[in-house]
Amino acid sequence: MKTESRLVQWICWLIVITSFFLTGFIIGWFARPTSTDTSHDAGSRRHLREFLDEMRAENIRDHLRKFTRLPHLAGTEQNLQLAEQIKGEWLAYGLDSVEMVPYDVLLSYPNISQPNYISIVDELGNEMFNTSLSEPVPEGYENVSDIVPPYSAFSAQGQPVGDLVYVNYGRTEDFFQLEREMGINVTGKIVIVRYGNIFRGNKVKNAMLHGASGIIMFSDPADYCAPGVQPYPDGWNLPGGGAQRGNVLNLNGAGDPLTPGYPAKEYTYRYNLEEGVGLPKIPVHPIGYHDAIQLLKNMGGDIPPNNWKGALNVSYRIGPGFTDGFSTQKVRMNIHTNNQVTRIYNVIGRLRGAVEPDRYVILGGHRDAWVFGGIDPVTGAAVVHESVRSAGKLLRKGWRPRRSIVFASWDAEEFGLLGSTEWAEENAKVLQERAVAYINADSAIEGMYTLRIDCTPSLHTLVYDITKQVSSPEEGEEGLSLYESWHKRDNWTDDRDAPRISKLGSGSDFEAYFIRLGIAAGRARYTKNRKTERYSSYPVYHSVYETFELVERFYDPSFRKLRAVAQVRGGLIFLLADSQLLPLDASQYAGSLTKYAHTIAQLGQKHPDALVKYGVSFDSLFSAVENFTVAARDFHERLTTLDRTDPIQIRMVNDQLMYLERAFVDPLGLPGRPFYRHVIFAPSSHNKYAGESFPGIYDALFDIEHTANPKEAWDEVRRQISIAAFTVQAAAMTLTPPA
Amino acid sequence: MKTESRLVQWICWLIVITSFFLTGFIIGWFARPTSTDTSHDAGSRRHLREFLDEMRAENIRDHLRKFTRLPHLAGTEQNLQLAEQIKGEWLAYGLDSVEMVPYDVLLSYPNISQPNYISIVDELGNEMFNTSLSEPVPEGYENVSDIVPPYSAFSAQGQPVGDLVYVNYGRTEDFFQLEREMGINVTGKIVIVRYGNIFRGNKVKNAMLHGASGIIMFSDPADYCAPGVQPYPDGWNLPGGGAQRGNVLNLNGAGDPLTPGYPAKEYTYRYNLEEGVGLPKIPVHPIGYHDAIQLLKNMGGDIPPNNWKGALNVSYRIGPGFTDGFSTQKVRMNIHTNNQVTRIYNVIGRLRGAVEPDRYVILGGHRDAWVFGGIDPVTGAAVVHESVRSAGKLLRKGWRPRRSIVFASWDAEEFGLLGSTEWAEENAKVLQERAVAYINADSAIEGMYTLRIDCTPSLHTLVYDITKQVSSPEEGEEGLSLYESWHKRDNWTDDRDAPRISKLGSGSDFEAYFIRLGIAAGRARYTKNRKTERYSSYPVYHSVYETFELVERFYDPSFRKLRAVAQVRGGLIFLLADSQLLPLDASQYAGSLTKYAHTIAQLGQKHPDALVKYGVSFDSLFSAVENFTVAARDFHERLTTLDRTDPIQIRMVNDQLMYLERAFVDPLGLPGRPFYRHVIFAPSSHNKYAGESFPGIYDALFDIEHTANPKEAWDEVRRQISIAAFTVQAAAMTLTPPA
Repeated sequence: MKTESRLVQWICWLIVITSFFLTGFIIGWFARPTSTDTSHDAGSRRHLREFLDEMRAENIRDHLRKFTRLPHLAGTEQNLQLAEQIKGEWLAYGLDSVEMVPYDVLLSYPNISQPNYISIVDELGNEMFNTSLSEPVPEGYENVSDIVPPYSAFSAQGQPVGDLVYVNYGRTEDFFQLEREMGINVTGKIVIVRYGNIFRGNKVKNAMLHGASGIIMFSDPADYCAPGVQPYPDGWNLPGGGAQRGNVLNLNGAGDPLTPGYPAKEYTYRYNLEEGVGLPKIPVHPIGYHDAIQLLKNMGGDIPPNNWKGALNVSYRIGPGFTDGFSTQKVRMNIHTNNQVTRIYNVIGRLRGAVEPDRYVILGGHRDAWVFGGIDPVTGAAVVHESVRSAGKLLRKGWRPRRSIVFASWDAEEFGLLGSTEWAEENAKVLQERAVAYINADSAIEGMYTLRIDCTPSLHTLVYDITKQVSSPEEGEEGLSLYESWHKRDNWTDDRDAPRISKLGSGSDFEAYFIRLGIAAGRARYTKNRKTERYSSYPVYHSVYETFELVERFYDPSFRKLRAVAQVRGGLIFLLADSQLLPLDASQYAGSLTKYAHTIAQLGQKHPDALVKYGVSFDSLFSAVENFTVAARDFHERLTTLDRTDPIQIRMVNDQLMYLERAFVDPLGLPGRPFYRHVIFAPSSHNKYAGESFPGIYDALFDIEHTANPKEAWDEVRRQISIAAFTVQAAAMTLTPPA
Repeated sequence: MKTESRLVQWICWLIVITSFFLTGFIIGWFARPTSTDTSHDAGSRRHLREFLDEMRAENIRDHLRKFTRLPHLAGTEQNLQLAEQIKGEWLAYGLDSVEMVPYDVLLSYPNISQPNYISIVDELGNEMFNTSLSEPVPEGYENVSDIVPPYSAFSAQGQPVGDLVYVNYGRTEDFFQLEREMGINVTGKIVIVRYGNIFRGNKVKNAMLHGASGIIMFSDPADYCAPGVQPYPDGWNLPGGGAQRGNVLNLNGAGDPLTPGYPAKEYTYRYNLEEGVGLPKIPVHPIGYHDAIQLLKNMGGDIPPNNWKGALNVSYRIGPGFTDGFSTQKVRMNIHTNNQVTRIYNVIGRLRGAVEPDRYVILGGHRDAWVFGGIDPVTGAAVVHESVRSAGKLLRKGWRPRRSIVFASWDAEEFGLLGSTEWAEENAKVLQERAVAYINADSAIEGMYTLRIDCTPSLHTLVYDITKQVSSPEEGEEGLSLYESWHKRDNWTDDRDAPRISKLGSGSDFEAYFIRLGIAAGRARYTKNRKTERYSSYPVYHSVYETFELVERFYDPSFRKLRAVAQVRGGLIFLLADSQLLPLDASQYAGSLTKYAHTIAQLGQKHPDALVKYGVSFDSLFSAVENFTVAARDFHERLTTLDRTDPIQIRMVNDQLMYLERAFVDPLGLPGRPFYRHVIFAPSSHNKYAGESFPGIYDALFDIEHTANPKEAWDEVRRQISIAAFTVQAAAMTLTPPA
């Protein structure tokens, strides 16, 4: 009995112990997370706060001061030295690696021994008047050498002589009005147009198309002076002696004109100059308004309509040529600018991702400036610099983002987005497979009013999210978020009650990433009041007067606006790199597509009879957009029940989000523009700065107005609608559950 | 004391229990696998064995019998019914889903009321001789209706009359020899060429380029009869009344001629016929050798060199026209074939992957046949059918592959790879992002000698692996593997001691997947002895004599050869879908690139003076290949230390392997061929069937021989070398560690 009870007791013991062991085992089994990621996002938000708070206005001021002492023209020794300096500082801040990436691209410089200028000449060719050879240098910079005088980069060389014709802004519609309504042919004439409204390269292309032998562009005070503001240095308006530099290429995204489609490396095949992409065939030159008055004041011909008149004290007669008493005088351009293959340098810094090192978020902006780059680009470069510093600080504390971050300081943006495009070409495969998003960091300020965001629709939600976490930089708005401040100033009323977000056009380094490769992209800057301030960009844009003092005295004395922009750009990068689920919103894309489809269909509805006659219908496009909308809604619904502990599940939906933008790329490109491949967003063929939605359809409809063969033109509209419908449908397919 | 000892006892108890609990917890914690995948590959191998063993020769025989009773021309009711049947059976076998995917593509049929034929006419136009309107129908098929007579699909309509000129195989070099050495101009003449050596569409293009008004193609016994073999039905040679059907397009990968680049859906914009891609502008017609004798026997002109002579009892004089006594006679073609947009149907079956459903492995082959499709394509379709059946069997036992498998039955392959290309166009984005590999399943047999594999280099290792696990189908080779049997018969002696594997050319449905989209691809079939059997494809190719009996009596009476091919194709699919690490080998690619670089450089070395004069160097290509070789070696070395339990690590390297083939695609395409985009492999411009390595350089060097402007031609060689070097370099970058 005793031993028996002993046995029973032992058995009981064993059962108890075993059951505790088993309980422990089971709890242990299930307690162990199969993925490390469940509470990741909360930690990530805390780090975001640290990252944003670490950015300081006074540091941005210091970076701006430091980077604007000397000119940093692309291809010069100074710009290489600046690259080395940035590389060194990024390494010191703590990036994992920083490299210099050189390319040999076609640049264009004035001939030092034969300056460019424009003359009024008498019948013997004697120069009666010459435009100035340079801008008056601002105080404090008198001893700086290597200030390149105002010129049109890539202008053809030549000394055409002829009568002047004034063609307003030189837009497609201006030339049509001139020829059809005013009956003036510009063949063999020198046209003079005012800067503004469209990209200068489009003006040059139009002048060439219409047969002009040269083109002069001037900055009219109507477009480059704000009322009640003094010219620099007493205010931020353009002085009469200032002029806007700039390239006059029509690259359409090709990058280096001699190596379209491929990186301009040492071994790369180069086309001859005559075969180069987008090089103008006629001389081009920019002047200020003091010089413009001299050219315009004696012009003859008719007085133009009021919307052709600027703010100078002249009558803006269209010519051709000068009025009685001056009619034997002609204008001669003297242009000796040289194209030359030149080495440029990007600086590429990398921060390796902890979990998905093969996913890249890119923050890129250019470093090269026409002169000091006080606004363009150094307000942008200073902001990137501060982002790198802040990220480095977090890295030292042990933080590392989930995905990799790439910081880029591009070269030769001013010469046609060359540095960024060549790097995109060299890395196209890797970027196509792995790039999550590209945030652009050109000029961080162009006005003093409020925030401006241009981005792809899938970033809308993230932009609103991050701007709610940034403080308003405005005086008297302590306690308000940037979102609230922005919302108050620029409500998207025609669309919905939220701050306005615009479409991406072109004209900065995001182009190759967004429009060629289909990488989600966006840009942020402080801007002017779009309702009251009509001048293009900002008055001293691309002049010698873009100095540190311009920003410090007028645009952002506290540097809080620049800090806010830094926090927006940095915050976007941070959340794109560190969120477990990519913060991209397919439903926002659906909403935008719906809006764009209605807009483009309305444009078509201007020709109701032709639509019937040529069998043109937008139905397939609306149907595709509807399918996309359903697919996007279902996709985000499925996300709510996603198993967040399964790394492959997460990666699968993130891949769908990442590749969504890619789905809008047509490898065949837009008609005649093989490097503009985004079917939803591209610049219009008539203005590189303006982002159009459904650009293929838009351009085809634009051509309807001017065609001699309506059947062919409407066939092209039908073809473009079909391509757009297919592309949207294919994008919808990428959002459906795989397999 | 008592209570105290009680307390001690309880504490001891508690400690013991707690420690058992903790032990259990800790063991439980660590016992739980964080990934499900460590012993996966062993299980996968066991399932592979089951999958292969389940495929039966008698089933393949039954599928072949069942699918070859009626003609299944693309666009006909019979081929739609066959599609429905296949869909039903695949669903019954157990696939997760099967769908019919229609497109409306341009097909081409003879006019029933106006048959096509060729006449010899006298000076009054009276028909002295007419070619036959159809082939004698084989025994047992006399009551079958809807046998389409031999014709050249997409021939232009017309009734050209003229003198005949014989141009051997109609190759580029034949036409050059004719014009330059023999001094004969074919402008306005009707050319007659023998089938074989190159794709028939290239013959037609050459005839057009040289100004011929029509082209007749005949099957010469030298090319379509094996010595000592009887004509069908007594043997497998082509009878004199048989003729080869086939399309004569020059699509260069465009798919449907009216919708290049986009899927031929209802809403898709269609070009006019005159704008269609690759449609010949002259009449084309195929004849058998009985009819050919009648056309050739009285020809005049010179006797050609021996390599222009076939095996007919005629002298193969080149003309133009007939000899004395017949010189007033001409030849007239009477061609009334119609192009028409017609609905076709792909059948797409899916088997969802268990772990990575967003990764696709595709087994696709066509279903449409010119007549019965006894070999082409039903030996292939029967093999796919058996693969689906075997996979279904495993599925029922609970198995599911890691990745998704897609089975495709393509339509209208015979009309220019239309079904497969349209589907690739519709799904381009998803395929580009997710497709691991494409295995083609056209005709599974074209000879009785041994295995033939054409595939991308990264599949070499997998092909060797799988063929070692398949038994030799040869009598007397019991116990030998297919690998051993194959190795014995076709050793790759000039390269290395292993069975020969060839490059992919074109001419079947892998084209859009491999050459346009850059998806790793391969094909497998049983073939003839390349050393002794010189005829093209197989003698009765595309004739009415391709019957079930042809295979059962002559090619594979035991159906064991077809089973071996089924096991190879199925085994490739299985391991690509189910291996944890993708069985793709970048080092094999490196080895092949090295070989190709030497081959192409040697071709250039034929012109040593020109290389110096025009500054042409292959150094950049060799340097890029060297970099790729190092990157590939390092990549595979890193794989050996990969953490196999980390799902993201696995996915990252698999993505690199999957995207490797994509890296060789140039979005700009080869010169003039926007849909041939693979820089390493594409058909030569002079023969669609022949896969060339570095096709851009190859074509540029080919042009050197015939150019009037050597500077321009050598510039193009330099440009192509630069593109190839860049592409290989970019591919190397995709193999380096990310970030």
